[in-house]
Amino acid sequence: MLVAMILFFTDFGRDDLYVGQLHAVCAAKAPGVPVIDLFHDVPAWNIRAGAYLLAALTNEIPRGAVVVGVVDPGVGGDRVAVVVEADGRSYVGPDNGLFSQVVRRAHASTSHHVKWIPETLSASFHGRDVFAPVACALACGGHPAMVAAPLEASVADWPDDLGEVIHVDHYGNAITAYRAAMLDPGARVMHNGRVLPRRRTFAEAATGEAFWYRNSLGLVEIAVNRGSAADMLGLAPGDAIVIGD
Amino acid sequence: MLVAMILFFTDFGRDDLYVGQLHAVCAAKAPGVPVIDLFHDVPAWNIRAGAYLLAALTNEIPRGAVVVGVVDPGVGGDRVAVVVEADGRSYVGPDNGLFSQVVRRAHASTSHHVKWIPETLSASFHGRDVFAPVACALACGGHPAMVAAPLEASVADWPDDLGEVIHVDHYGNAITAYRAAMLDPGARVMHNGRVLPRRRTFAEAATGEAFWYRNSLGLVEIAVNRGSAADMLGLAPGDAIVIGD
Amino acid sequence: MLVAMILFFTDFGRDDLYVGQLHAVCAAKAPGVPVIDLFHDVPAWNIRAGAYLLAALTNEIPRGAVVVGVVDPGVGGDRVAVVVEADGRSYVGPDNGLFSQVVRRAHASTSHHVKWIPETLSASFHGRDVFAPVACALACGGHPAMVAAPLEASVADWPDDLGEVIHVDHYGNAITAYRAAMLDPGARVMHNGRVLPRRRTFAEAATGEAFWYRNSLGLVEIAVNRGSAADMLGLAPGDAIVIGD
Repeated sequence: MLVAMILFFTDFGRDDLYVGQLHAVCAAKAPGVPVIDLFHDVPAWNIRAGAYLLAALTNEIPRGAVVVGVVDPGVGGDRVAVVVEADGRSYVGPDNGLFSQVVRRAHASTSHHVKWIPETLSASFHGRDVFAPVACALACGGHPAMVAAPLEASVADWPDDLGEVIHVDHYGNAITAYRAAMLDPGARVMHNGRVLPRRRTFAEAATGEAFWYRNSLGLVEIAVNRGSAADMLGLAPGDAIVIGD
Repeated sequence: MLVAMILFFTDFGRDDLYVGQLHAVCAAKAPGVPVIDLFHDVPAWNIRAGAYLLAALTNEIPRGAVVVGVVDPGVGGDRVAVVVEADGRSYVGPDNGLFSQVVRRAHASTSHHVKWIPETLSASFHGRDVFAPVACALACGGHPAMVAAPLEASVADWPDDLGEVIHVDHYGNAITAYRAAMLDPGARVMHNGRVLPRRRTFAEAATGEAFWYRNSLGLVEIAVNRGSAADMLGLAPGDAIVIGD
Repeated sequence: MLVAMILFFTDFGRDDLYVGQLHAVCAAKAPGVPVIDLFHDVPAWNIRAGAYLLAALTNEIPRGAVVVGVVDPGVGGDRVAVVVEADGRSYVGPDNGLFSQVVRRAHASTSHHVKWIPETLSASFHGRDVFAPVACALACGGHPAMVAAPLEASVADWPDDLGEVIHVDHYGNAITAYRAAMLDPGARVMHNGRVLPRRRTFAEAATGEAFWYRNSLGLVEIAVNRGSAADMLGLAPGDAIVIGD
């Protein structure tokens, strides 16, 4: 059974003034549809980090769901709004590359530009004024005004996998944009010239040991058992991780 | 169609121990009613900042909604609980001025003091023990014990607009309590003697440029394109912004 | 009336990548069941602090609810998954002592080990892969594979009450694991050799005064009226508070 739901994936900040307004829109325009805050702490304005994080999260998004994805440094400019359908899920947001990795990994996908314009449109919060209303319409089976558009517009020219830290979680684990399943046998994960051992899970590592493992999203993650890899190794979003032979 | 919903606006901190308890109350006492965390990070105990923020958010609150507004440094003292009806929305909380700007800007409003007392009343968490249960009753069409009370009690003697930073968002944008629509033509926005240029949106500003614009709530906001105005200009809640000729 | 609901109590961090995935599981597997984030900021890996906080929150959890409690430094190791029934509420999580204080204070409780294994099991996120799906089944009246197991496994050998700070809230209030109702008459609350006065509520204390009071969970809490006890007294989670004669 497909359950209609709306999920948000943004850099709006979970605690800030913006997320509550999105929920108020959904409660009014899509009553009864579950609304889920998938993630609101993409590094600010970092479309590329967002693109890889969203693609990694896709398996956790039920089919039939509508995802509102917004990392939108160009808001108020001339970038268009896009609706991407990929493998049974819909993605609504700015056409700026944020959905590029989702599209690249999808078996099948289509893309439409949104032509609907709200009565009131702010200069800086299209998440509230455009993307959330469009998502509500889609989740309720409606058809906002759209025209088919080539997928290319949503596809940025980035590699399939990226040896880069794209999120440091609150434990201090450093998550990269490299899928563990794409590693060559014998490939090594290195930071600052140091080869990190592979462990299957935290319980396999000694307390205080730095290691890498395949995390719950399938990504290469650098961690320390009962400690902060970010603090111990000085890792932050944007840092390069050497993954190879 | 009016959709019943409950929205919270507090200084309880989104991540802290308190918000989950509010939701548990609502799930038990108003089953099926959507519950939305509009904002929980009003500067602690700052009734005035809360009053202007809540008034600015009012247009984003659907008519028919019940708002629980709590910034309550006097909890446990002799301040009373109030229910304000203003332009089709209800506001429940301490009668300490938090609703003063909502009332001042409303076309029509009434006010009641809450006489209902819960079986168990903590000394410090009337949000959970009083305001949320009253909101649940109102959202479900019930009638908690109340008596009509003059509106004056909720109205603090503050100006219509305030040249003051009342929130710095996680991008570093500094939001003031001054409505852009109330500015005189030719009025200037200044910080530390520096006149800030006006831009319509971020995309109009050069990267790294400080400017002000009318934000998505209609307020004067000081921002830096792809940067933090708070860091660059040293802005924090409470700072004065000169707005005038 | 009992309302089915699922509440989360974890150290996953409210804003991080994990909580949204839990909600997506619940929306798909328990549609229509309210899902509440009771608390996600237990100090990381601190089972003991979590055990006392969860027990203190129990009265705020409606009967009939299913609580997913996860503070799980041993994830991926050999600790088992447990379902505890205590006084009309269910608790699902790792069998590592997190539910020990709930069990100890319950009038009646039973315990089962979970035998159900999901098709896909990550090495590090059993909250998503095991505990949330089991909670969904329980909340929907289903019966995941379980075997009765002795309660002892969930009961750690910790005292009934603990003179220790287990949470500092965002106001700077320091919450201890000592129930105020268990204090002897005349008992004193001391920090660093300084006896703190007892107040009933914040409104009874002078501005800037440090005191202790019975907080809204019934615990001894050290606070400063309109200030931060954590900053003023240098309090942090794990700090000892002397409570006695």
